[in-house]
Amino acid sequence: MIKSVSNGRVKQIVQWQTKAKERRKDGVFLAEGIKMFEEAPEELVQEVYLSADIEKKLREKQTTFEKLQRTGYEVVLPEVFAKMSDTQTPQGILTVLKRLEYDLEELLDKPDSLFVILENLQDPGNLGTIVRTGEGAGITGVIMSNQTVDIYNPKTIRATMGSVYRVPFLYVDDLREVMRKLREKGVHTYAAHLQGSNYYDTFSLRESTAFLIGNEGNGLSKELADMAENYLKIPMEGQVESLNAAVAAALLMYETHRQRSQ
Amino acid sequence: MIKSVSNGRVKQIVQWQTKAKERRKDGVFLAEGIKMFEEAPEELVQEVYLSADIEKKLREKQTTFEKLQRTGYEVVLPEVFAKMSDTQTPQGILTVLKRLEYDLEELLDKPDSLFVILENLQDPGNLGTIVRTGEGAGITGVIMSNQTVDIYNPKTIRATMGSVYRVPFLYVDDLREVMRKLREKGVHTYAAHLQGSNYYDTFSLRESTAFLIGNEGNGLSKELADMAENYLKIPMEGQVESLNAAVAAALLMYETHRQRSQ
Repeated sequence: MIKSVSNGRVKQIVQWQTKAKERRKDGVFLAEGIKMFEEAPEELVQEVYLSADIEKKLREKQTTFEKLQRTGYEVVLPEVFAKMSDTQTPQGILTVLKRLEYDLEELLDKPDSLFVILENLQDPGNLGTIVRTGEGAGITGVIMSNQTVDIYNPKTIRATMGSVYRVPFLYVDDLREVMRKLREKGVHTYAAHLQGSNYYDTFSLRESTAFLIGNEGNGLSKELADMAENYLKIPMEGQVESLNAAVAAALLMYETHRQRSQ
Repeated sequence: MIKSVSNGRVKQIVQWQTKAKERRKDGVFLAEGIKMFEEAPEELVQEVYLSADIEKKLREKQTTFEKLQRTGYEVVLPEVFAKMSDTQTPQGILTVLKRLEYDLEELLDKPDSLFVILENLQDPGNLGTIVRTGEGAGITGVIMSNQTVDIYNPKTIRATMGSVYRVPFLYVDDLREVMRKLREKGVHTYAAHLQGSNYYDTFSLRESTAFLIGNEGNGLSKELADMAENYLKIPMEGQVESLNAAVAAALLMYETHRQRSQ
């Protein structure tokens, strides 16, 4: 049992919680909560920490406890756990996982694909919500510019509600290169843009599709938007100038799902 | 110019920023940022505070500065403004407004209405996003249980991006009473529910419609859901068990907009 916040492993966890660079250097990410442990791909789990006050409760959840016995775990005092946690009311279980890796070419070869391309999205909650909604809508993957917020940010991980384990994603140095590849593969690309002259539901989205979503404040760069096959817009009543990025992505992904289900 | 954080008005603002009860008692709410000042209904503006470092910049925005001259404003030192602000990187303008008031009966009498009914929603960002998306989709109003998060929470106000000024909303003691009135007025009510057997896009939503959305963790109470004319569900692929409440609301509101635009 770890009883002190000055324990080396506790200090390491705090580093990983707060510093994207540390997580990257060590090739790991953290996921808090029972659901995030239960859904974690077992081969990726590296360490598990339990707060002493929930160990008993978890022993009663048979499947979860069996998984804990296979992965191994370390118990820490509740006040130590509070220090390791990123949340104000911790659930008392923290999992350290090996990072996920996906291959761009493999993703691009999937039939009837649906991609979300994010250029410099900044809000961790928005990214997590897009991943969660994306799994619900059945997307093929999320492709992001390197300037996009870190998907392994604890807030993002939490907002994915586990979908981060299942929705393929990639960061790339140059989205323009991705745009060229999408075009080669016959994927139709749509830039969500205020200057679009056609509404999103007027396009047939049954064939392979990629939606480009820009930064919360500035939208898409003109250079990237101009590489898309089409601009599209979402209708807005009243004085609304734009929608939240995760909401816009959700509407586009689910319109595709709706069309493909008919 | 206010130069000290111990100034009484500064202390009052901090109270209003942090305590829903104080805001309610005094019948006010706060809105930060230039856009929130520019879009504020002038008759509701009670006080405006400018950080000394942005006064010059605002003098160059003619329409905004004219509005400032009409409403009056008080300049405060930047370090004082930082204390008054709810954000980490304040825009340097804070508006105190009289609270908005709407009449339920009046809202219910609107033709071809579209309501969002929220039962105990807890996340301030979700509520703000629903109001913003709701204006975009052209809703009639948002009706909330008294246990729903305070719409005047600074995080909610920010997430509305100004839509809070334009989308009617109401808190009520008893949503069941509202359900009965909606039915009397011929408004079709739909409970967003995992146990729905029909997908949201299979309903005709052209007539007056109200969507019921529940709490983030627990969904709708059975009692309220059972008062709805229909259950509906949103399809979800993969292992997704539910969508973010603001995303679910967005999909329902925009499906209605899509059907009514055809």
